[in-house]
Amino acid sequence: MSADPHPPTVESSTSTSGLPGFLFSGEGWPYLLVPLIPVAVVLEFTHAGATWVFLASALGVIPTAALMGRATEELAARSGPGIGGFLNVTFGNAPELIIALFALGAGLHEVVKASLVGSILGNILLVMGASMLAGGAKRDRQNFEPRAASAQALLLLLATVALIMPAIFELVQGPGLPSPRDQAVAYPSDVLSLSVGVAIILLLSYAAGLLFSLKTHAHLFNPAHDEDDHGGEPWTVKRSVTMLAIAGVAVGFMSEILVGSITEASESIGLSPFFVGVIVVAIVGNAAEHWVSVYFAVRNKIDLSINIAVGSAAQIALFVAPVLVLSSFLIGPFPMALVFNGFEIGAIFLAVLIAQEITQRGDTTWFEGLQLLAVYAVLALTFFFV
Amino acid sequence: MSADPHPPTVESSTSTSGLPGFLFSGEGWPYLLVPLIPVAVVLEFTHAGATWVFLASALGVIPTAALMGRATEELAARSGPGIGGFLNVTFGNAPELIIALFALGAGLHEVVKASLVGSILGNILLVMGASMLAGGAKRDRQNFEPRAASAQALLLLLATVALIMPAIFELVQGPGLPSPRDQAVAYPSDVLSLSVGVAIILLLSYAAGLLFSLKTHAHLFNPAHDEDDHGGEPWTVKRSVTMLAIAGVAVGFMSEILVGSITEASESIGLSPFFVGVIVVAIVGNAAEHWVSVYFAVRNKIDLSINIAVGSAAQIALFVAPVLVLSSFLIGPFPMALVFNGFEIGAIFLAVLIAQEITQRGDTTWFEGLQLLAVYAVLALTFFFV
Amino acid sequence: MSADPHPPTVESSTSTSGLPGFLFSGEGWPYLLVPLIPVAVVLEFTHAGATWVFLASALGVIPTAALMGRATEELAARSGPGIGGFLNVTFGNAPELIIALFALGAGLHEVVKASLVGSILGNILLVMGASMLAGGAKRDRQNFEPRAASAQALLLLLATVALIMPAIFELVQGPGLPSPRDQAVAYPSDVLSLSVGVAIILLLSYAAGLLFSLKTHAHLFNPAHDEDDHGGEPWTVKRSVTMLAIAGVAVGFMSEILVGSITEASESIGLSPFFVGVIVVAIVGNAAEHWVSVYFAVRNKIDLSINIAVGSAAQIALFVAPVLVLSSFLIGPFPMALVFNGFEIGAIFLAVLIAQEITQRGDTTWFEGLQLLAVYAVLALTFFFV
Repeated sequence: MSADPHPPTVESSTSTSGLPGFLFSGEGWPYLLVPLIPVAVVLEFTHAGATWVFLASALGVIPTAALMGRATEELAARSGPGIGGFLNVTFGNAPELIIALFALGAGLHEVVKASLVGSILGNILLVMGASMLAGGAKRDRQNFEPRAASAQALLLLLATVALIMPAIFELVQGPGLPSPRDQAVAYPSDVLSLSVGVAIILLLSYAAGLLFSLKTHAHLFNPAHDEDDHGGEPWTVKRSVTMLAIAGVAVGFMSEILVGSITEASESIGLSPFFVGVIVVAIVGNAAEHWVSVYFAVRNKIDLSINIAVGSAAQIALFVAPVLVLSSFLIGPFPMALVFNGFEIGAIFLAVLIAQEITQRGDTTWFEGLQLLAVYAVLALTFFFV
Repeated sequence: MSADPHPPTVESSTSTSGLPGFLFSGEGWPYLLVPLIPVAVVLEFTHAGATWVFLASALGVIPTAALMGRATEELAARSGPGIGGFLNVTFGNAPELIIALFALGAGLHEVVKASLVGSILGNILLVMGASMLAGGAKRDRQNFEPRAASAQALLLLLATVALIMPAIFELVQGPGLPSPRDQAVAYPSDVLSLSVGVAIILLLSYAAGLLFSLKTHAHLFNPAHDEDDHGGEPWTVKRSVTMLAIAGVAVGFMSEILVGSITEASESIGLSPFFVGVIVVAIVGNAAEHWVSVYFAVRNKIDLSINIAVGSAAQIALFVAPVLVLSSFLIGPFPMALVFNGFEIGAIFLAVLIAQEITQRGDTTWFEGLQLLAVYAVLALTFFFV
Repeated sequence: MSADPHPPTVESSTSTSGLPGFLFSGEGWPYLLVPLIPVAVVLEFTHAGATWVFLASALGVIPTAALMGRATEELAARSGPGIGGFLNVTFGNAPELIIALFALGAGLHEVVKASLVGSILGNILLVMGASMLAGGAKRDRQNFEPRAASAQALLLLLATVALIMPAIFELVQGPGLPSPRDQAVAYPSDVLSLSVGVAIILLLSYAAGLLFSLKTHAHLFNPAHDEDDHGGEPWTVKRSVTMLAIAGVAVGFMSEILVGSITEASESIGLSPFFVGVIVVAIVGNAAEHWVSVYFAVRNKIDLSINIAVGSAAQIALFVAPVLVLSSFLIGPFPMALVFNGFEIGAIFLAVLIAQEITQRGDTTWFEGLQLLAVYAVLALTFFFV
C-alpha cells in the first residue's frame, strides 16, 4: 500500500484530443523528437563531427525510450508488471547482446567483460539509485513487494559467487597478482572448463528464476496497480509487444550511434578504455532503460522500476554473460573465460550486497537512492584512476 | 502460520495394525532395510569389493536415518523442536568429531579442515537448499520463526569472522600467497596462539547460543506444532533420547563404512583428495542428516529443517572445530592452526552470507532452495578443478 | 512498542529533595567524583606516576560522561532523540577530531588511521554490543525503529565501499602485498587524488544523512518516548546544549589524560603501537560514550543507544576521516591518503556487515549484543598478535 497514491493527473483529460493534443501534452512531447532519429543516422553514416552525431543521437534516443516506457506500461496494465518488466528488460538488453557478440568475434574480451560489469553496476546503482531518489523526492517513502525484489537480488548474489570463485581459482592457481587479464592470451583449459560449467549453472538458474517470477509466483510480481492515466486509448497486448520490439530495435540503434560518438569523444579527451567501457558506455548505452525506470518511479510505480533495474542486471549476469562465454567457443579467435579482475569483482560484490540490503525490507526513501548513487560515484572515481 | 497446513494422512489409520502393518506403511518401509546393516559390516571387514560395500552401506544408512528422524520428531513433540533439533544435531555430529580426532592423531590437518568446511557448506547449502526446494515444491511458501533462524545464522557469521581474521593474519604476516597449507609443517607460534584464543571465544559463544536457544529464548525455537501423524504410538522422552543415541551411533558407523568405500572409489577414478574431502565425504557422510531434514520439510516442518541444517553447521564451526584445535595440542604430531585456504574462506563467507539473507525474513519458497543448491554446485565445480 | 516498558523508579521521589538528596540518589552518585577531575589534571601536569594519573582520570571521566548522558536525555526529551543523539555524538567526537589534527601535523598518519578504525569498531561492536547485552539482560527483547538504524548502518556500508576501493586500487596498481603503509612515505599522486574525491563524496553523503535524519525523516528518529524519571527538574533546550558542550570539553580533556596514561602503561608492558591505537585508545577514549549508551539501553531506550553507537561510527567514517584527509593538504609534512591495511579493511567490512544484519529487523536480544562483543574479541585478539 502506497503512502502517496498516484492522484488523477491533468493529462487524462487530453486523452481524447487526438494526435496534436497528445504530442503537446505532458506525455506526448518526447515524440516531437522523432525526426532526430533519421538525422542521427544520416550524420553517423556521413561521418559528421562527433559532437553533432552525439547531439542528434542523444535527443533521438528519447522518443525511443518514451515508446518503450509506454509499451511496457500498457503491457504491465494488461499482463501484469512481471511480464511487462521482463519483456522491457529483454528488448532493452537484446541490442547489448548483439553488440557484444560482434566484439567477441573481434577478440575484444576485456572490452566485453568491462561492458558487462558496467551494465550490472549501472543498473543496480545508477538506475535504481536515480529511480529511488526521484521517486522518493516528494514522498515519505515508496513501498514495493520485498519477496519479488529479493528473489531477483538473490539471483544477483548467486551470480556474484559465480564470478568470485573462478577469480579466486585463477588467483591461487595462476601466476598470482596481477591477474593475467592484461595479457590478451587464452586461459588454461581448466579455467575455461570451469567457466563453461559455471555458465551452464547460471543459465539454468536464470530459467528457474523466470519460472518463479512468471509462473509459480507470478502473483508476487503483480501487485495491485493504479489505473493508468497517461494520454491516449489503451493498447492491446499484441500492439504493446510489437511496439516494445520496435522501440527495442530503435533504442539499440540510437544507443549504438550515441555510444560510438561518446566513446570517440571520451578517448580523445584522455579517458582510459577501461573507464569508457565500464562507466561511459554503461551510462549512455542504458540511457533509455534509465529514463523508463525513473519515469515509473516518479509515477509511484517503484515496483516496476526495481523490477526493471534489478531484473536487467540479473539478465546480464545470468543470461547475457553465460551466453557470451558459450558463444566464444564458436565465434572469435579464442574462448572467453568468466574471469574478472579485482576491481570488477570488488565493485560487483559490494554493489550487489548493498542492493540486497536495500531491497530487503520493502520500502525505500530518497536517501537510499542517494546512497546507491554515492556508491556508484565512488566506484566510477576509482575506475577513473585505474 | 502455514499456507498449507499438514493434512491428516492415510498412515495414521495404520497406527494400530502392529509391526507388519507399520513396516509396510508409508512410514515404516525404511526399517525393511535393517538387515543390510550387518551385511555392510561383514562386507567391510571381509574386504569385499568397494562397489558391494558401497551398495550395502548406502542402503543400510537409510533405516538409521529414519530412526533418527522418528526419534527427533517424538522428542520435538514432547520437549519442543529446540531441544529436539539440538540433540539430533549433536548425535549426528558426534561420530564426525570422533573420526576427526583419529585423523588429527595421524597429523592429517588438511583433511580435517577440508571435512569441517565440507560439512558447513553441505549443511547450509545442500541440506537447507534441498529441504527448501522439496518443502516448497507444492506450496506457495513455508514460514518459520526468523528470530530463531537468524540467531543461529548470526553464530555462523561470527564463526566466519573467526575464520577470516587468522587467514588475513597469515596472509599479511606470513610468506604471502600461496598459503603455507601446502607444506605439512607447523605454523609459527603466534598463529597457534591466535588459533587457541579464537577457539576459546567460539566455544564460549556456542555455550551462550545454547543458553539462548534452550533457556532464555526457548519459546522462539518452539513454534506451535502440528499434531504428529506418523504410524505407531507416541514415545516417552527417555525412549526418544535412547533411540536418538542408538541411531546416532548406527548412523556414524554406517556413514564411516560408506565414506570409506566412496573415498576409495572416488580416488580410483581420479578425483583429488581435496574434492573428495570437501564434497564427496560431506555429501555421503551427512546423508542421514540430509534425509531427516528433507523429511521434515516435506511434512511442512521447515522450522525443524532449518534448525537442523543451520544448527549443525553452527555446531561444527563453533564447537567441533575449536575442540579439534584445542585437542591437537594433546594428540597428534603437532598442533593444528585455525587457518583455512582462500577457497575455503571464500566459499564459507559467501555461503554464510547467502544463508543469512535467506533466513532474514521468515518465509521461503522452492526458488530459494534452488538458489542454495546452485551456489553449492558452483562451489563444488570450482573445487573439482582445484 | 516495548515488551518491558520502563516502570516508574524510586529515584523520581527524590527529585525534590535538593542537591544532597540528588547526589546520593541512584542518578546523582557519579557527580560525587567531580573532585577527581582537578586531581587528575594536577597529577598529569606534575608528571606523577602513570598509575595514579590513570586511576584519577578513569574515575574523573565518569561524572563528565554522566553529565553528557543527562544533557542528551534532556535534549532528547525536548527536541527528540534524533537531534539529541546527533549533538551527543558530535560533542563526543569533537575532541577526537582535534587530537587527530595534532597527530596529523606530526605526520603520524598510521596512528591517525588506526585510531579512526578503532573508533568505528569500538562503536559498532563494543558500544552497541555492550548496550544490547546490558539492555536485553532482563528483557525478552528490545525494539527500535529499523528504518532509522538501517539508514545509518547504510551510511557505514557506503563508507566501507569508500575504504575498500582505494585499497584494491593500491593493491593492484601498487607494489603489491605487503601494503606500502610500513614505509612512512607519501603515496603516488593518483592515490591522493582518489582519496580527495572519495572524501568529498563521503562528506556530501554525510550532509545528506543529516538532512534525512534531522529534517525530511526526523519522525523515524523520534519514536514515542517514555516520561523521564531521573532526579531533578527538567532542563531547557538551551541549558541542555550548554551542558552537553561543557561535558564534551571535559570528556575530551579527561579522555586525553586517561589515554596518555594508558598508552604509556600499555607500551611499557610490551603491547604494539598498532594494538594500543586500534584497541586500547579506542576503548579508553570512548569510555564516556560507552557509559552513556549502556545507560540508555538499561533504561530501555535502545533506540537512543543505537543512534549514538552507529551515529558516532558513521560520523567518524563520513565526517572526521574525510576532514582529516582534506586537512592533511594544509597541515603536516605530506598529505594523508585514505588507504587502510588488510586488517583494518577486513575488520571494518565484517563489523559493518554484522551491524547491518543486526539492525535490519528492529528488535534485539542479549544474544545479539554478546555476538557483537565476541566479534570484537576476535578482532582485538588478532590485532594483539600483529
